[in-house]
Amino acid sequence: MSDEQVRYTLPESEIPTHWVNLLPDLPGEPTPPLNPRSMEPAGPDDLTPIFPMGLIGQEVSPEPEVEIPEPVREIYKLWRPSPLYRARRLERALDTPARIYYKYEGGSPPGSHKPNSAVAQAYENKEAGIERLVTETGAGQWGSALAMACSLMGLDCLVYMVGASYDQKPYRRSMMEAWGATVHRSPSDTTEAGRSQAEHQSGSLGIAISEAVEVAAGDAATNYSLGSVLNHVCLHQTVIGQEAMAQMAMAGDEPDVVVGCVGGGSNFAGLAFPYVRRVLRGEARTRFVACEPAACPTLTRGAYRYDFGDTVGMTPLLPMYTLGHDFVPPPVHAGGLRYHGDSPILCGLVKAGIVEPRAFAQNETFEAAVQFAREEAILPAPEPAHAIRGVVQEAEAAREAGEERVILLGLCGHGHFDLSAYDAYLGGELEDPVFSEQDMEAALARLPEAPAIA
Amino acid sequence: MSDEQVRYTLPESEIPTHWVNLLPDLPGEPTPPLNPRSMEPAGPDDLTPIFPMGLIGQEVSPEPEVEIPEPVREIYKLWRPSPLYRARRLERALDTPARIYYKYEGGSPPGSHKPNSAVAQAYENKEAGIERLVTETGAGQWGSALAMACSLMGLDCLVYMVGASYDQKPYRRSMMEAWGATVHRSPSDTTEAGRSQAEHQSGSLGIAISEAVEVAAGDAATNYSLGSVLNHVCLHQTVIGQEAMAQMAMAGDEPDVVVGCVGGGSNFAGLAFPYVRRVLRGEARTRFVACEPAACPTLTRGAYRYDFGDTVGMTPLLPMYTLGHDFVPPPVHAGGLRYHGDSPILCGLVKAGIVEPRAFAQNETFEAAVQFAREEAILPAPEPAHAIRGVVQEAEAAREAGEERVILLGLCGHGHFDLSAYDAYLGGELEDPVFSEQDMEAALARLPEAPAIA
Repeated sequence: MSDEQVRYTLPESEIPTHWVNLLPDLPGEPTPPLNPRSMEPAGPDDLTPIFPMGLIGQEVSPEPEVEIPEPVREIYKLWRPSPLYRARRLERALDTPARIYYKYEGGSPPGSHKPNSAVAQAYENKEAGIERLVTETGAGQWGSALAMACSLMGLDCLVYMVGASYDQKPYRRSMMEAWGATVHRSPSDTTEAGRSQAEHQSGSLGIAISEAVEVAAGDAATNYSLGSVLNHVCLHQTVIGQEAMAQMAMAGDEPDVVVGCVGGGSNFAGLAFPYVRRVLRGEARTRFVACEPAACPTLTRGAYRYDFGDTVGMTPLLPMYTLGHDFVPPPVHAGGLRYHGDSPILCGLVKAGIVEPRAFAQNETFEAAVQFAREEAILPAPEPAHAIRGVVQEAEAAREAGEERVILLGLCGHGHFDLSAYDAYLGGELEDPVFSEQDMEAALARLPEAPAIA
Repeated sequence: MSDEQVRYTLPESEIPTHWVNLLPDLPGEPTPPLNPRSMEPAGPDDLTPIFPMGLIGQEVSPEPEVEIPEPVREIYKLWRPSPLYRARRLERALDTPARIYYKYEGGSPPGSHKPNSAVAQAYENKEAGIERLVTETGAGQWGSALAMACSLMGLDCLVYMVGASYDQKPYRRSMMEAWGATVHRSPSDTTEAGRSQAEHQSGSLGIAISEAVEVAAGDAATNYSLGSVLNHVCLHQTVIGQEAMAQMAMAGDEPDVVVGCVGGGSNFAGLAFPYVRRVLRGEARTRFVACEPAACPTLTRGAYRYDFGDTVGMTPLLPMYTLGHDFVPPPVHAGGLRYHGDSPILCGLVKAGIVEPRAFAQNETFEAAVQFAREEAILPAPEPAHAIRGVVQEAEAAREAGEERVILLGLCGHGHFDLSAYDAYLGGELEDPVFSEQDMEAALARLPEAPAIA
């Protein structure tokens, strides 16, 4: 051991002033969402009942940079800039010539990257005179981020939490309540959608979305809020990658490959999109690896089609890799990766061959997470454990090729609320569910009739 | 809202190079521990069976500065320097002219200040050729810190966890196991002490200490490790206060009062002792407020006497404020503050009037913690919630006096593993146990026969 730098910290003044908007740099024609009834391109009018104009403007902005409002930057200061680490111990354990860096978002109060967007969304809604936000949450990462953001912005917050998670993960619910949010077990008796699904007592993300959207659509003072997938959510997360660039410059290194996990895509987008823009502009040749669960292999095995964003088919159709809007993934512990589709921008980059997707089984991701924890001390959440598995693969490939390779990992959250999953892994009781050929055939048969993606 | 600085970050190069040792600056004659059989001052020989010479040397060092070994500083870089925040939102909510700063230790991988000492202890034992450390833990903060430190230093780790906590807090156990530690439910059948207490199935810290000490004393390759109270543990924590001084200088402010919570005293010592030395040397006039639970009011109501450090009376006697070595505090949620005594150095400072102790009931501390979480976003552990209550008191006093007062708070950990306590508070189900006159009389009657403190 020697006097090696392992953590790169930026001063508060280095919090980015703008978000990076990839839309104007994307190749090909734009592929807008479709109105679910007319199948025509959806416009702002399709979104104003549940989103403020500020966010709709960000969703379709043609500007390559979008200014971050000062009050949002002010709140970012509570946990940003987030640290970048060099994983020297992991490198030694893997006996690799690769240099591994990781950008850690688990230091935010809710413990993940989610508040980067939650605060921005709460701000735009507050500015628009909205008094309350309503959202859905599965395991609770997004719900707790929005609860915190609403608390800081002076908004009420209502969260529909998937029934099974509500029963099994009471601590995420308690966290939301500590920040002042109201949490309903979904399906609830507070909405028509919930009452109509009363027989599905364990609930689903799809039902919870339906409940939240119904509440938002029916109350002018209440808007809906979504934690991933949409362009403006990916946009908000790009503070991550911009900071990482400044920190990699401090380290005197440039990533050869950027590795992140993908659920709806906002975490991956946050770290990767600022680097992707360099590639799109011919300024760099970085590779990008997107890691997902073999149990929900959207990017590796999904169909590239227009599909609904929610299970019951209320939202506009989005152009994306999809396993079918009513696909219910097996209950893997990486709850944040259990989504049938992905960010349309990210899907376009996969289609264009710029981002390479890889799928991993549950046990191999926990094996990587435990090795990471024992070398680097931080206990990762099950979601970024997928990305760590991808990093191990890259580091081993570098060793075999005898090549120095600079790997940048997005470590988007800690596993403090996921220890029952570690327990199951260490006890040898973790299953490895996979997505079968039959699952795929069934998914294709259920896709809605819609135009092909241009 | 404006462009106000709220977080003060130091670069890695500013991690202190030395720990601050208060011993040579203390007024009066030294008050050494006593051998439990002879009642004579205990020497190194009383400690070598369970501690390495490196730590014994630190325990009695006459040097005002003790150099931090480079490999320990290397590991500190994983979470140090820790951030200092200005609590501007809380100040506004309290409508106070006071300026409130807080030093946050919850960003360490186990979530508290504990690893500052765990890593230093693991290092000295590794250097001494020890292969395994054994310790006890209640709620699990100390056990998880030592598990992490042993993992990073390549030592085995064995933790005796109090039975009731083992059953109620499985996640802290899982965390220790993820870092590779072995965790036994105490009382266990692995030790004579444990088997002799088999009828007390819920266990106690005293029984767990007895089991750990028995294992360490009976195996030359195994040493014992303690997470608070002793001089060397307080010493290791002084990185906190030294960093805070540099960060307060960045802020251009100087604390009028330093506020922390006290269990065994290591967290309080860590933040306060570097400031206390300035006061002892006549260089400053800072006040110090030590906050403890009304259910375990050691400093406010204990007797200043020699008493055992453990419940069954195996350890040397320490000069301290004590509620009696076999006092079992009510099960308040601030498990880290449920100790019958305190650091002898801290007790001496209370006796000398330099540190002012205050006791708070459980509900008022959670009220303060929830207000803190809703204004500052970070969810505090129940232990520092006591210090936050003390800060609110100081801030209100400043408002009433119409005076600017600079308050420095030690926020020693997050509450991610304490959400059932928040649940109970928000549900109005939290009790306010207090220490009664009868408790005090019983405690005094149980104190061992020992010389008065000089």
